[in-house]
Amino acid sequence: MRINECAEWLRRRNGFLILSHHRPDGDALGTAAALCRGLRILGKTAYLLENPQTTDRYTPYLREYYAPAGYVPEHVVAVDLADEGILQVNARELYTGKVELAIDHHPSNTGYAKETLLMGDRAACGEIVYLLLMELLGGVDQETATLLYIAVTTDTGCFRYKNTNPGTLRVGAALLEAGAPIDLNRTLFMKKNRTRLVLEASIINGLEFFMDGEACIGVITLAELERIGVTESDMEDIAVVAGSVEGVETSCTLRQVEERIWKVSVRTGQYENASRICAEFGGGGHGMAAGGTIEGSLEEAKAVVRAAVEKHWKER
Amino acid sequence: MRINECAEWLRRRNGFLILSHHRPDGDALGTAAALCRGLRILGKTAYLLENPQTTDRYTPYLREYYAPAGYVPEHVVAVDLADEGILQVNARELYTGKVELAIDHHPSNTGYAKETLLMGDRAACGEIVYLLLMELLGGVDQETATLLYIAVTTDTGCFRYKNTNPGTLRVGAALLEAGAPIDLNRTLFMKKNRTRLVLEASIINGLEFFMDGEACIGVITLAELERIGVTESDMEDIAVVAGSVEGVETSCTLRQVEERIWKVSVRTGQYENASRICAEFGGGGHGMAAGGTIEGSLEEAKAVVRAAVEKHWKER
Repeated sequence: MRINECAEWLRRRNGFLILSHHRPDGDALGTAAALCRGLRILGKTAYLLENPQTTDRYTPYLREYYAPAGYVPEHVVAVDLADEGILQVNARELYTGKVELAIDHHPSNTGYAKETLLMGDRAACGEIVYLLLMELLGGVDQETATLLYIAVTTDTGCFRYKNTNPGTLRVGAALLEAGAPIDLNRTLFMKKNRTRLVLEASIINGLEFFMDGEACIGVITLAELERIGVTESDMEDIAVVAGSVEGVETSCTLRQVEERIWKVSVRTGQYENASRICAEFGGGGHGMAAGGTIEGSLEEAKAVVRAAVEKHWKER
Repeated sequence: MRINECAEWLRRRNGFLILSHHRPDGDALGTAAALCRGLRILGKTAYLLENPQTTDRYTPYLREYYAPAGYVPEHVVAVDLADEGILQVNARELYTGKVELAIDHHPSNTGYAKETLLMGDRAACGEIVYLLLMELLGGVDQETATLLYIAVTTDTGCFRYKNTNPGTLRVGAALLEAGAPIDLNRTLFMKKNRTRLVLEASIINGLEFFMDGEACIGVITLAELERIGVTESDMEDIAVVAGSVEGVETSCTLRQVEERIWKVSVRTGQYENASRICAEFGGGGHGMAAGGTIEGSLEEAKAVVRAAVEKHWKER
């Protein structure tokens, strides 16, 4: 489907429910809410299905779009959802197999929906909905721009990540012009809560380096989590901490989940393949970010991870 | 002076030397080198005066533009320089009062040069030189785009700081399109060296909060600097660390410079005025970033800073 076809599809229908993926990020939530708002401005009935895993920082932006109890949609739309298997948890029973339109930027989209607007070269799904709303409405209001700005900056680390391209920056420019507040960056990207910072400090202080500083292992024990008072939202994307050290190509983070069970996250740069490293201990994932689980003492788990990293380093 | 007038001024002359400010950042250096390269592409003789305070990360980009010993310029140009008083140290004796053209984005530019191209609403001086080179050459090559990308991203924290505006993002888009490598972000904004990270962890772990968590004091002692092995470049912008805590409006960093002498940096959010706080102990600066020096024991210095912060908080 192309943008204008998707716009036409939406224009001809009414009674929308918009879904996204489990553990939703700013792109999933901001895009869903922006689409919902845009459809309402177009005179349609549109709601989001409240996602129970939404983190507090986003809730104030979303509340007004939540579907009331008992809302029966005529058309179900999903955004930023590559695979029905990761549909938001409270939608799985009712809406699996029922998504009529998917708007997505994941090249891996499985084609679960009847119609799909897929733009795999876009850094954020919010960019696509921006283009779609421009087609439908000829512009976006300040509130929509804010929601889309949250979407686009979340998926690009505020224009820092590698997926950022000229199109991303141009959409960003248009959103700022439409009134998205630049101050959002301070809240979303430049502040961290105290427990998160102390947790990061703990990981940094405990880092063990090997392979001439090209690899490192960070550890998070249950005891340390308790000492610091860490909550689940403090743990978001925690694997980036070990990877933030200059010169480190491969970083591993071991998080204790039970006495003898460790969740491992591996992040790699351009030379190593995280997925292949994790396959050594039964894990998997993507080329630059993968994970797995190891049973044993901390020292045993570290040895397993280190051996996997070293094996692939030697093959290089 | 307007862009086209500045372009004309440059077109009519030859034999340039380009200067910038002391303790040069990516905007000063990237802008200077990009202008130098653009002038050379235009067929002119142009050099930078090597700045002795250049940090290692930038040197590889600049070397080819350094003036040979004994180069006698016909025209001296300064970029990103608000005030001749902060001219790069090795230019002060020879070139104070000799700058013919200043290209700058600081509204506070003192007008020290004969001609000034001042665009005070631009987030980075690199944006201005981009527009100037578009006027002069109709485009920028990959190397120039890279230099300007370093400039623009440095002054905007890779498009995160409040000074970022639609124009900044549009210039960013054009520079990526001209071949500036997005991978630069990883080196410039997502990696820190090990000693810097350990220093940050040390500051975080030692933070003392007051005023219901709205203010905090971080401390860097000489003993801790020695333990970690911190170098001068690790200290760059270190005051942001204490200010990165969610909920903190006013952050203070006390850095020991001698047994009983403390350099104080104060950073404030939108409600407090750092300059007024620092005036309480004889310091000064800007509204959101100011500093000063306090003599005494650590506890005495902390008490002075805390009293200054609390005084202004109560007035609010």
